[in-house]
Amino acid sequence: MEIAILLFDRFTALDAIGPYEVLSRIPNASVKFVAKQAGSVRSDQGSLAIIADYSLDEVPSPDILVVPGGPGQSALMEDEPILNWIRRAHETSTWTTSVCTGSLLLGAAGLLKGVKATSHWLADGVLSQLGAEPTAERVVIEGKIITAAGVSAGIDMALKLVALECGETWAQSIQLGIEYDPQPPFDAGSPSKAPTEIVERLRSRSRFFMQ
Amino acid sequence: MEIAILLFDRFTALDAIGPYEVLSRIPNASVKFVAKQAGSVRSDQGSLAIIADYSLDEVPSPDILVVPGGPGQSALMEDEPILNWIRRAHETSTWTTSVCTGSLLLGAAGLLKGVKATSHWLADGVLSQLGAEPTAERVVIEGKIITAAGVSAGIDMALKLVALECGETWAQSIQLGIEYDPQPPFDAGSPSKAPTEIVERLRSRSRFFMQ
Repeated sequence: MEIAILLFDRFTALDAIGPYEVLSRIPNASVKFVAKQAGSVRSDQGSLAIIADYSLDEVPSPDILVVPGGPGQSALMEDEPILNWIRRAHETSTWTTSVCTGSLLLGAAGLLKGVKATSHWLADGVLSQLGAEPTAERVVIEGKIITAAGVSAGIDMALKLVALECGETWAQSIQLGIEYDPQPPFDAGSPSKAPTEIVERLRSRSRFFMQ
Repeated sequence: MEIAILLFDRFTALDAIGPYEVLSRIPNASVKFVAKQAGSVRSDQGSLAIIADYSLDEVPSPDILVVPGGPGQSALMEDEPILNWIRRAHETSTWTTSVCTGSLLLGAAGLLKGVKATSHWLADGVLSQLGAEPTAERVVIEGKIITAAGVSAGIDMALKLVALECGETWAQSIQLGIEYDPQPPFDAGSPSKAPTEIVERLRSRSRFFMQ
């Protein structure tokens, strides 16, 4: 099973690596990190570079497509090589997935018209503009399109995908293997739960918008 | 604040990137990925390479040290350049941390004698052999040493560390920024919760041991 994870300048690391850590443990998974050009790609914080072993042309039809988000997404909303690659991969994929503002790239590629979808909580307005039906759910499965909420939600998304594709026993085995028994120190991981002043501060300095 | 994340062949990706995604958002954080030699380092699944921008010698005294685990840990249990680097960094660090079997490297460096610590659930026997006092807790704080359980526990660990170092408001801001409101599809993330047959299957094919 070929799994392509898209990389681009200023992607958010955990958006990509959360699903990677889960999906790479699928039996016979062949995960390929893909970018416009093969080579190193810097994440949003600048201090991490991951190597894209493949260029877009080399992985035209993955079984599973994972599109992460991050501040760099906004520069790609009219990037035809990237958007065309997403469109073509989606034609033959078994699953087309996104994490965080990766869903805005699916939307820009025209895949989310009238489709219920999610994104980082700061980006739901943009999802609407792209014709999607935003929801605050953490993982949204609509046909073969699965969108996940911000950053860490890709782990939950990938475990659900494994359950659908390989069965619950495999998903539970992987969950136990990565000891995913989360115990966040605070109950502040969504705008409905975090202190209002923190929500408003993040909203006011939000870097999530469509250019 | 200088934060060093150690990389080595066959590290587990999420062990490193979970804490990275949290700690890199600390104000004035300067995160440095460090390996024996600067350059690309492959993770345990083989399909991911991260670039270590720095060699060990270039980052001798980070404020925060993060040692991830992974199958490659077992080859380093007598690796003096790595163990010496850990020992020396620990002498001046503010926090010395590990995720998953990274704690076995802290132990091999002699830092855990008589210290309560955790690791991947499959590795607690080895922790004992190294003189530590294993516990099933997800995050263990003992003085300036913080150990986290398997793979995904590094996210919880890092959020606790941010709360200690920068205050709860910062920790909650980062938690909301990465939308860490986990909703695992199963309650199977620890050996006390997963179905017994899955626990036993993973135990029987465990790759976690000390050579």
